[in-house]
Amino acid sequence: MRLSRFPISTTKETPADAEIVSHQLMLRAGFIRKLGSGLYSWMPVGLRTLKKVEAIVREEMNRAGALEVLMPSVHPAELWRESGRWQLMGDEMLRIKDRHDNDYCYGPTHEEVICHHLRQDVKSYKQLPLNYYQIQTKFRDERRPRFGIMRAREFLMKDAYSFHLDAEGLAAEYDNMRAAYARIFTRIGADFRIVKADSGNIGGSRSEEFHILAGAGEDLLAVSSEGSYAANVEAAETLPVSVTRPPVLKPLARLSTPGQKTCAQVAEYLKLGLDAKVKLLVAKAADGGLIGIALRGDHQLNEIKAANHPKIASPFELAAARDVEQAFGCEVGYLGPVNCPIPVIADHAALALSDFVCGANENDHHLGDANWGRDCAEPEAADLRMIVEGDPAPDGSGTIRLLRGIEGGHIFQLGQKYTQAMNVSVLDDNGKDVTLHMGCYGIGVSRLVAAVVEQSHDAQGMIWPDAIAPFTAIITPIGLDRSESVREAAETLYADLLAAGIDVALDDRGLRPGAMFADAELIGIPHRIVIGDKGLAKAQFEYRHRRAETARMIPAQAEAVLDQLRQTVTG
Amino acid sequence: MRLSRFPISTTKETPADAEIVSHQLMLRAGFIRKLGSGLYSWMPVGLRTLKKVEAIVREEMNRAGALEVLMPSVHPAELWRESGRWQLMGDEMLRIKDRHDNDYCYGPTHEEVICHHLRQDVKSYKQLPLNYYQIQTKFRDERRPRFGIMRAREFLMKDAYSFHLDAEGLAAEYDNMRAAYARIFTRIGADFRIVKADSGNIGGSRSEEFHILAGAGEDLLAVSSEGSYAANVEAAETLPVSVTRPPVLKPLARLSTPGQKTCAQVAEYLKLGLDAKVKLLVAKAADGGLIGIALRGDHQLNEIKAANHPKIASPFELAAARDVEQAFGCEVGYLGPVNCPIPVIADHAALALSDFVCGANENDHHLGDANWGRDCAEPEAADLRMIVEGDPAPDGSGTIRLLRGIEGGHIFQLGQKYTQAMNVSVLDDNGKDVTLHMGCYGIGVSRLVAAVVEQSHDAQGMIWPDAIAPFTAIITPIGLDRSESVREAAETLYADLLAAGIDVALDDRGLRPGAMFADAELIGIPHRIVIGDKGLAKAQFEYRHRRAETARMIPAQAEAVLDQLRQTVTG
Repeated sequence: MRLSRFPISTTKETPADAEIVSHQLMLRAGFIRKLGSGLYSWMPVGLRTLKKVEAIVREEMNRAGALEVLMPSVHPAELWRESGRWQLMGDEMLRIKDRHDNDYCYGPTHEEVICHHLRQDVKSYKQLPLNYYQIQTKFRDERRPRFGIMRAREFLMKDAYSFHLDAEGLAAEYDNMRAAYARIFTRIGADFRIVKADSGNIGGSRSEEFHILAGAGEDLLAVSSEGSYAANVEAAETLPVSVTRPPVLKPLARLSTPGQKTCAQVAEYLKLGLDAKVKLLVAKAADGGLIGIALRGDHQLNEIKAANHPKIASPFELAAARDVEQAFGCEVGYLGPVNCPIPVIADHAALALSDFVCGANENDHHLGDANWGRDCAEPEAADLRMIVEGDPAPDGSGTIRLLRGIEGGHIFQLGQKYTQAMNVSVLDDNGKDVTLHMGCYGIGVSRLVAAVVEQSHDAQGMIWPDAIAPFTAIITPIGLDRSESVREAAETLYADLLAAGIDVALDDRGLRPGAMFADAELIGIPHRIVIGDKGLAKAQFEYRHRRAETARMIPAQAEAVLDQLRQTVTG
Repeated sequence: MRLSRFPISTTKETPADAEIVSHQLMLRAGFIRKLGSGLYSWMPVGLRTLKKVEAIVREEMNRAGALEVLMPSVHPAELWRESGRWQLMGDEMLRIKDRHDNDYCYGPTHEEVICHHLRQDVKSYKQLPLNYYQIQTKFRDERRPRFGIMRAREFLMKDAYSFHLDAEGLAAEYDNMRAAYARIFTRIGADFRIVKADSGNIGGSRSEEFHILAGAGEDLLAVSSEGSYAANVEAAETLPVSVTRPPVLKPLARLSTPGQKTCAQVAEYLKLGLDAKVKLLVAKAADGGLIGIALRGDHQLNEIKAANHPKIASPFELAAARDVEQAFGCEVGYLGPVNCPIPVIADHAALALSDFVCGANENDHHLGDANWGRDCAEPEAADLRMIVEGDPAPDGSGTIRLLRGIEGGHIFQLGQKYTQAMNVSVLDDNGKDVTLHMGCYGIGVSRLVAAVVEQSHDAQGMIWPDAIAPFTAIITPIGLDRSESVREAAETLYADLLAAGIDVALDDRGLRPGAMFADAELIGIPHRIVIGDKGLAKAQFEYRHRRAETARMIPAQAEAVLDQLRQTVTG
């Protein structure tokens, strides 16, 4: 592409409303333009990268045997009512009325639609397994869209849905998709982790997320030091602490802690570690009443684990302060498991403590040297806390460290959740009607672009992996309009690289070198070839990889440039 | 593709609610599935064809120098209010409110959006010309969606928008796009005509449509016998009839025509040709009053021409019967230009008549031997009628015949209509602010698929041109499961054709021959190779083009098959 015929619209100023680097750089480099809240247009330079990501996703889905389809973005409400999600999806689903006042939505996902088609077209087990995918536009009406493409309302998604006669067939296709996703994330050049995930409101059993590691990631990932364990902290189990509590020696003490309502205040006031304290949260119970959750003072509740506990209400909800104070007869800052008026469940780590401090269930007082079993009944034990750095890995593979990641893909074994609700069944080889097992597999295609920018940039701009760079290489001639030899060398190299199948840009805009360099760096083109009279006098081009500290001279031949492009330069 | 791993979901029954052949065949062949009113999913076999059409469109747009972008489907209402089309688009535009109760629409077209981006990004004439295109999903909330993909509510469109400093630049790009479109329609294998068109509510000046000829086409096209003139009948001019009216001889006669209210009734009653009568329609005038339109009895009013006349209201509207009867003092069936209480404009052909019959403006009476100038004032002449078969071509290239066409593309010189409303301007080389000239260019990508089916099918099913067939060729082995030599020959040929880059299907489903043949014919695969033991004994395959009357034997070699594929067989 000749840049004289290609709109490069870069700015030096960081846009005021862009909070994260990928948003800033994609605006500055002219990759995207904002149309409205959470609505972005992909401009020519940005679309080149998006299309390359899309092509890799399509190739690997085809290679894995999935079949491409294209379903509408506008869905009749009846299908969503049938699955029960018309209500469940809440405000995030964009609802639409057509001219005849019929209800529709802008599809945030397509389980209902594909189930509808499958139940009409598939009648026999002989037609299975099937895996249909599409690369198509979704809309989710986020309350507060931000971070540009990362959390846009309208976005491009690859969604796939597989159907099987039994759970084994589903598990096999899940593994097949998992491998395809690993190839996709590898090919786009991302540093990623596959982590165990919670299934959320999509439902089903097994599920994993594909995260691109980046400091700006919204998700925390728990990864073991020996590498075999990785989970979203939301889904990371913690091991019961296997210590035998020492025999109880000291008597229970009533401590005056006037105005000390938080764990941190109490620990500071009593000169104790947070990990010597038991805190008690009060949540709504599954039976409609209240239930206490005891945690070690330095631990955080994992609300997803709580919601999954049979005695705790789902979705998780803390009790209102007024209800708590009525039940306990004291302020929320002084709660504890001793003389507790409601049932208590304790996290394993809290249960491992002895001689601990806790609220006295009396204003301005705590208890010291409290002990389970002696001062209150031994509560039910459960895994209820967030995993933390240094925890032992649940699978024994060393200790846990936490990384930040951006979710780029998510695969689910849905089982029969949707196929049952929507009556998707076939006759098996005995002529018996069997409800299908279903998997679903999503990739945020447009989001991947932003995620790679978060992972791969520097102060000058983006740094693209070759496979998804808007241009793989750029030729930057110095003095194009005054040197015939520069012009000739640039045109020849441009033609040679095009002929070799390289997606190359020729910067023939006639700008000064600094402006050309700044644009190429901001846009993140991985390979730059500078052609000037000085170098040509020695039959040399200047070559620099976007990650390299400095440029170096190479022979002024297309083959020498292609040699550089074949090397992986990681700087 | 092995059909054992590819869902072929064909039916023999014609779906009850499919009115036209393309809709019937696309459903029967499993190309599409209905999701709701005007909403269709593209299933794997159909999407293969859609993607091939899309790829041809993309290649030719890129070749023509247009730059691909991707704009959101959901647009903020403010942009449409700014252009004035928020009201103008009426119920056809799908309006949406988000969770914060803000107004949006599902974009039926993208003039407003692209103008918004251009005015922010383009500041100097040096950045021009620009031509941005996208292949993207549109929604138009048709009152009565029907004909399947042909008039779906959600559909895939290629829309392009070009911007220029002056009208000459626009005209040059219009010609460039016109040539690109001609290449696209040629490459997809369609028999098409480029016709002069009305600009409709998109606005602007010059505009042409690309029509695929087919009996089911909703549009009538006027094409000259010598070929140089072609126009949508809506936009086809008619020539003034250049005859000198004979000197008037007979006196005006008052004829009793009791109960004869239509031209046809009067002509029959008086034993006259329809073309000897002048009929008078009454429309709303531009000044708010009524205006009479005189036409020859056998001609139809062209409402678009009428609306474009400065004295007639736009949009065109017939006057209410009650208002007409009040003004004329008689029923609507007896109107005429003699003693007419309102101003009259006459079509050229009506004005060429002498001694004509017309309504007497008195119930149950007509006038005979009426003459312009003698019995009433010479009215203003205008071109107001629909062109008919046999009319002289407006450019003198013989006579007109009428063809039916399906609109697949439309190109417009919009001029400054939108750029003025949305303030899209740049500084020219004198530093002066200049409002840009704009063109827009659309192709109904999904509709093209249906249009080609309308043009190219027979009683057995679709007949695809090679370039957009879901599969170019199909290998149909007879007795795959009992003949080792058939299996081996089929597998070898399949591998050889794949290696030669042919998009080939291998029917390894193990069905009986009749079922395999019926599917291949319904789906419209252009080249079929049958492999059976009988042929193999003579080292022969059976080859048949989908259009050919009969099959014939060819040597059992890949090269012989490739030879057949290289020939154009038109049967």
